[in-house]
Amino acid sequence: MRTGEKILDRAAATCILTLCFVCLHVTALKSQLFTRLGGLPYSTEPPVSYKTFYFDQKIDHFGFLEDGTFKQRYLLSDKYWQQPGGPILFYTGNEGDITWFCNNTGFMWEIAEELGAMLVFAEHRYYGESLPFGQDSYRDSKHLNYLTSEQALADFAVLIQNLKGTLPGAQHSPVIAVGGSYGGMLSAWFRMKYPHVVVGALASSAPIWQFPGMVPCGDFYKTVTQDFAKSGINCDANIRKSWKAVNNVSSSASGLQWLSEEFSLCAPLKNKNDVLTFKSWLQETWVNLAMVDYPYEANFLQPLPRWPIQVVCKYLSFDSTVSDYQLLQGVAQAAKVYYNYTGSSPCLNTSQTATSSLGYLGWFYQACTEMVMPMCTDGVQDMFEPEEWNFQAFSDECKAMFGIRPRADWAGTVYGGKEISSHSNIIFSNGGLDPWSSGGVTSNISHSLVSIMIPDGAHHLDLRYSNDLDPPSVRAARELEVKYFREWIKKAKKAHRAAPTG
Amino acid sequence: MRTGEKILDRAAATCILTLCFVCLHVTALKSQLFTRLGGLPYSTEPPVSYKTFYFDQKIDHFGFLEDGTFKQRYLLSDKYWQQPGGPILFYTGNEGDITWFCNNTGFMWEIAEELGAMLVFAEHRYYGESLPFGQDSYRDSKHLNYLTSEQALADFAVLIQNLKGTLPGAQHSPVIAVGGSYGGMLSAWFRMKYPHVVVGALASSAPIWQFPGMVPCGDFYKTVTQDFAKSGINCDANIRKSWKAVNNVSSSASGLQWLSEEFSLCAPLKNKNDVLTFKSWLQETWVNLAMVDYPYEANFLQPLPRWPIQVVCKYLSFDSTVSDYQLLQGVAQAAKVYYNYTGSSPCLNTSQTATSSLGYLGWFYQACTEMVMPMCTDGVQDMFEPEEWNFQAFSDECKAMFGIRPRADWAGTVYGGKEISSHSNIIFSNGGLDPWSSGGVTSNISHSLVSIMIPDGAHHLDLRYSNDLDPPSVRAARELEVKYFREWIKKAKKAHRAAPTG
Repeated sequence: MRTGEKILDRAAATCILTLCFVCLHVTALKSQLFTRLGGLPYSTEPPVSYKTFYFDQKIDHFGFLEDGTFKQRYLLSDKYWQQPGGPILFYTGNEGDITWFCNNTGFMWEIAEELGAMLVFAEHRYYGESLPFGQDSYRDSKHLNYLTSEQALADFAVLIQNLKGTLPGAQHSPVIAVGGSYGGMLSAWFRMKYPHVVVGALASSAPIWQFPGMVPCGDFYKTVTQDFAKSGINCDANIRKSWKAVNNVSSSASGLQWLSEEFSLCAPLKNKNDVLTFKSWLQETWVNLAMVDYPYEANFLQPLPRWPIQVVCKYLSFDSTVSDYQLLQGVAQAAKVYYNYTGSSPCLNTSQTATSSLGYLGWFYQACTEMVMPMCTDGVQDMFEPEEWNFQAFSDECKAMFGIRPRADWAGTVYGGKEISSHSNIIFSNGGLDPWSSGGVTSNISHSLVSIMIPDGAHHLDLRYSNDLDPPSVRAARELEVKYFREWIKKAKKAHRAAPTG
Repeated sequence: MRTGEKILDRAAATCILTLCFVCLHVTALKSQLFTRLGGLPYSTEPPVSYKTFYFDQKIDHFGFLEDGTFKQRYLLSDKYWQQPGGPILFYTGNEGDITWFCNNTGFMWEIAEELGAMLVFAEHRYYGESLPFGQDSYRDSKHLNYLTSEQALADFAVLIQNLKGTLPGAQHSPVIAVGGSYGGMLSAWFRMKYPHVVVGALASSAPIWQFPGMVPCGDFYKTVTQDFAKSGINCDANIRKSWKAVNNVSSSASGLQWLSEEFSLCAPLKNKNDVLTFKSWLQETWVNLAMVDYPYEANFLQPLPRWPIQVVCKYLSFDSTVSDYQLLQGVAQAAKVYYNYTGSSPCLNTSQTATSSLGYLGWFYQACTEMVMPMCTDGVQDMFEPEEWNFQAFSDECKAMFGIRPRADWAGTVYGGKEISSHSNIIFSNGGLDPWSSGGVTSNISHSLVSIMIPDGAHHLDLRYSNDLDPPSVRAARELEVKYFREWIKKAKKAHRAAPTG
């Protein structure tokens, strides 16, 4: 994306400064800054074949003053579509370039033929090429004002109504929403708010309950910690000890230099602020590893070995007699598993934990408005430095950055929080290794709001291409998901046949 | 309401001019101008007892740039409320002053005691005292931009969440939405979009299908015609003939004078435009009569006899030999039943068919944005001059008046149109005499989306105070409605008891 580079640069700079402040006070903001939902990689198979289209969407669905339109990008593959009436699998795009999600959601590509399904991948407004105000989309809070999940859902609804109205043979095609992470939240919410548009939804690793008052703020980091605890002896304990070791070692100039060299940092640590950034970066590294702890080698931001946390933990199995320096040598080795598995990185950059700059600022804006996801650590049940959730500090930070304040209760009010039992036909799949499962639906709510747990799965493993090393749990999950899809499709077709006419 | 008087005056003037244009081209706009949904009277019993509150609502729920708030008025009566946990009947306010709806929705007041219910009447934004920008709320399309049904529903949801969170004993109170006409549409949509907030809805005389492509545009006026056809011999036929008679008589200056005198018009007819306005006013008079064809004397805009159309039709039973002048003498007598039943009106004003100026402009804005309700006449199946539905002309008119254009398909996309079967717990009650029943749900959709027909009922008769002259059908309807309320309440309480904690 070549849009708003100046702004992105400025924002990136702000973020880095911000983080230095933030890590002193607001774990949640820090986490949201770094841990972008869905900003995580899938393994990529050879390019899939689709056509790219652009659809004129209203910039504002909920007001009539702003009557302008923008081009929403969507990708379409009808290779296996059995028309008329064959189903449509509709990916509800996340905060990123839709081609990336398209190329990496292997599950949809693998089941298209057996379902006779058309595939559609719709880009989320303000990401990729779907920019409401082009280069100016991120200029200020005025231009960002239409970046909300409600507008995105309305885009999806309008697009689908249009496709069904204009594509020959699609008029009576049942549509199923599919999404992972934030895209999975959108899939679930889409079915809740527009059940006349989609017959069901697969919400994979969708933390729809990671909002204020719904789940304990510490669960996310607890899960991260558990992943490390079970991947190697003393692994979590040594990471827990490492923060103090960093503090100790970094208290002297020579220690700062030693740390910088040991971690092969691109920019040497110079002061306390740098150390705070460094610790945030490390924390985020462990979080990212927990999210992508896949059972096979995967090429994402950077290539990773299979079960990467096990590999990382090999460097962190010290007993209690280890010195600070020895411990941090191990941590450095561990970090390099994530950042330099192939050995091709000349140095490590503490301002970066993810490759894709796409969507970074957009997701931050969303976190600062609707997507308020409290997180906290206590250093006891998790392996991180204790930090409470501080909404006010978070809000102030958002105000300083965007000139707007988050609304802590809005997501719960508009999407129902835990009171969603009157809805139907939603699959919530979650991986037991995935920290985002802490905010997910992990038990059945009703016979048609079902949870599928994948105990040895990380972040939306089920949406990835199948792999010989897939654990049986994810194979079973995918089979069950397709079974539900078939049921929804069958019911929709039956209802259509039973309808009087048209 | 003493708000924006200048603007209202200007707008009223515009409307009158507009109508002269409109009646040439756009029946639907004309109808929407005059026939304000819910702008109809209920019979008023002695003042009910409630407390008035004001709640700070966000002006914009769907964007974060506009972070201002306004005071939403709501009325509350807890006289019969059995706390903790007693139900809340929540009136989803229409386009008007909420005290008027409160004082006139006798049904809620009559069932409060037996249900142990709290009553809440929430005012719709931009009406009554709930003005987002105070005196400036109607100034221009910029200030009107937050007048949408979606914003109103969000207001209701936020208000209820707040009440349940702050009123001792209300935390687990099941809430039922109640509304009539546009308020009934809001009740139904509220249950569809916020099923976690309300356990069910009574949507009385709610034309949720009076939108493009959902019902034939001529059905509304057909029902009006049928009401007159069955209320007196030749009644509809003579009204059908009257338009040509007006044209004939008004073709001369002496005829214009005769007409003006015969109808006791406050302002004599002077030209063709005046005649067009005159015919629109007459047409609207018949429509209003159809809506309020109640079985007992009712004091609304002006006092009316019981079964007013029967009284009107006594003046319109001529056989085919009647002259234009004789016919129009009858029409004048008939019109005076509506406008001068008590004999206290010195003259009749063709720019007025409803007393309440409240909400007039607001509803017009809503009709020009989301609430696009096609209507047409053919002069054969109805008793009016033929006029096609012309969306483009309607849209142009809206553009000229507000600087915005309606979105014909939006209401269907956001609220589901006819595809609403996945929802639950909504009662759609309709009166067989009510022209708005043409856009209503008049047969069961599922076991929990039910239709209650009141064959001899006019516009939301069931929501009015009971009356000795009520037909058995409306008594039965009210009983059935309460039965459903009890079921929903019982189910909600059972679900709450079954929940793990809190």
